[in-house]
Amino acid sequence: MDEKVNLAAKLALLDRPYQPGIVGHINDYKLQVVKVKGPFVWHKHDETDDFFLVLSGHLTIHLRDRDIELDPGELFVVPRGVEHCPDATDETEVLLIEPDGTQNTGDAGGEMTAEPIIL
Amino acid sequence: MDEKVNLAAKLALLDRPYQPGIVGHINDYKLQVVKVKGPFVWHKHDETDDFFLVLSGHLTIHLRDRDIELDPGELFVVPRGVEHCPDATDETEVLLIEPDGTQNTGDAGGEMTAEPIIL
Repeated sequence: MDEKVNLAAKLALLDRPYQPGIVGHINDYKLQVVKVKGPFVWHKHDETDDFFLVLSGHLTIHLRDRDIELDPGELFVVPRGVEHCPDATDETEVLLIEPDGTQNTGDAGGEMTAEPIIL
Repeated sequence: MDEKVNLAAKLALLDRPYQPGIVGHINDYKLQVVKVKGPFVWHKHDETDDFFLVLSGHLTIHLRDRDIELDPGELFVVPRGVEHCPDATDETEVLLIEPDGTQNTGDAGGEMTAEPIIL
C-alpha cells in the first residue's frame, strides 16, 4: 500500500451488500470493507479469528447463545470455530480483517460466497 | 475476546500519549489503541507491516520522502522496513494492529519504548 485509504470513499465503490472489497494488507492479512444489509449466512472459520469494526450503521452478530450489537467505533473478534451470522436492518459499513484466502462464508459455502474485489 | 470493544471507552482509560493499550487480538496480532500527541521517534519494523487507523484527530506519519496525512476513517499501512515517525499537533486517537511482540519503537528503542497495557 503506497497511499492512505479513505474507508468511506472505498465503501462508496461497492454496489451491493456482502460484496467484500480489499483496501489493503497487513502482512498476509487482507483489509476489507463490506456493506451489510439483511442476514448473512451462519458459518464459522476453523482456522482463524474474524475481526469486525463498524464504521457506520448498526451491526448485529448473531452467535448461537447471544447477539453482539455494534455501533460505529465498536469492534468484535469472533473466535475461530465459533458459529456466527452477521445481520443489519439498515445498511451498515464494516471493516473486516482476516487472513488472505479466508472465504467469506467459511465452512458454509453457498450462494453468498463471494471473492473479494480489489478497490 | 468475549465481549465487544468500544474504542472510545478504551481510549478514555489511557492517561498519556504513546502508551499503547491492548483491547483484543486477532490470532497472534494485538489490537491496540493509542493517543498520539507530538512527534514520536523515527523507527522501522523489519519483520512486519504496521497498521494505523485514525479514530479522532489528525495524524501525520512522516516518511523519509513524504508525509501521510490521516483524518478519522483513514488508514495507512507502513510497509515493513520503512522508516516512519507518527506525529500529531492535537491529541489524536489511533487503532494500531501489529503482531504480538512488536515493540512500539521498532529498531530505535530509547525512552519512548513502552510495553502495552491491557485495557
